[in-house]
Amino acid sequence: MEIREKTLSNEKIYDGKIMKIHKDTVELPNGNQAFREIVEHSGGVCVLPLTDCRNIILVEQFRYPFAKAILEIPAGKLELAERHNPLECGKRELFEETGYHAKEFVSLGEFYPTPAYCTEVIHMYLAKGLYVENAHNNDLTPQNHLDDDEFLNVIKLPVSKILEMILGGEIPDGKTQAAVLKSKVLGHFSDVV
Amino acid sequence: MEIREKTLSNEKIYDGKIMKIHKDTVELPNGNQAFREIVEHSGGVCVLPLTDCRNIILVEQFRYPFAKAILEIPAGKLELAERHNPLECGKRELFEETGYHAKEFVSLGEFYPTPAYCTEVIHMYLAKGLYVENAHNNDLTPQNHLDDDEFLNVIKLPVSKILEMILGGEIPDGKTQAAVLKSKVLGHFSDVV
Repeated sequence: MEIREKTLSNEKIYDGKIMKIHKDTVELPNGNQAFREIVEHSGGVCVLPLTDCRNIILVEQFRYPFAKAILEIPAGKLELAERHNPLECGKRELFEETGYHAKEFVSLGEFYPTPAYCTEVIHMYLAKGLYVENAHNNDLTPQNHLDDDEFLNVIKLPVSKILEMILGGEIPDGKTQAAVLKSKVLGHFSDVV
Repeated sequence: MEIREKTLSNEKIYDGKIMKIHKDTVELPNGNQAFREIVEHSGGVCVLPLTDCRNIILVEQFRYPFAKAILEIPAGKLELAERHNPLECGKRELFEETGYHAKEFVSLGEFYPTPAYCTEVIHMYLAKGLYVENAHNNDLTPQNHLDDDEFLNVIKLPVSKILEMILGGEIPDGKTQAAVLKSKVLGHFSDVV
């Protein structure tokens, strides 16, 4: 069955800082009409930072929609100028949020968080060979240039512990689940766990 | 570091069919103020239907934000009355979208698709022991009671093929990646692949 929907008209609802909202009238495959409420988002990048010592670096961040702090891998919003270079955004977010650079980045593919109503695509990467510039002690992870409204704690946990937490339902963040589980099934942890 | 944000005021932006939008002014941990643009969503359920013959049932659906059809596991929005019983919603969506019932449902935990700006929680389930009521042939999958604006194709693929597609980046839907990979790592496919 051909299941395409055709845009008939577009009503702008909101033009904000991180999202635009519009409500479109569409023609359905059967010729009837329906509405689609759409969140436009510029997309994002997430990075799974894997240390040489069997740890993953997470950030603990207050997530206002849930009124609590949750654990996630480092991530950020793609600026318009970065749309065609998500890896640069990933390198920047990793450094800004954790203080780490990485020698190697491996693409883990794309992640559509809510394809029913939002245009956001998250580009996922695994980062290996982590290092801190000019540091005498690699346990130092100075955060750099966080956004003005961004506050977070950096937390280092063993890969085995994070897998246990994900399988036990203790890490609800979707991109973190996908990036960690995909790395596990792809064998990226096989030399460390 | 204590990283709680405190709501100072709330501006209603939009009250739609599947989402409400509001813009809140918050007090940050350092005492400064910032805005949070929030999508309120009633939440959802997704079901990974695993047949006794090593297949997974997927639905191919046109996703308007991406202007294309994509493959996903069956899923649907939680109605307000179902908020405290997501499993009932999962059973309903599985039947409505694929025509299948299941003898056993296993919780795969919660999935926050976009905790930065949206309240949506997706409850994930694995469904085993699939059957079609009053059917002489289990290959029949009559769809039942789809929503008026819902059109989809039901597609049955081997677990091994779906894993290959996810690892190869061919299934970008986030909840599908998480539910399939989690089932794989938990060993739910071990007796079938």
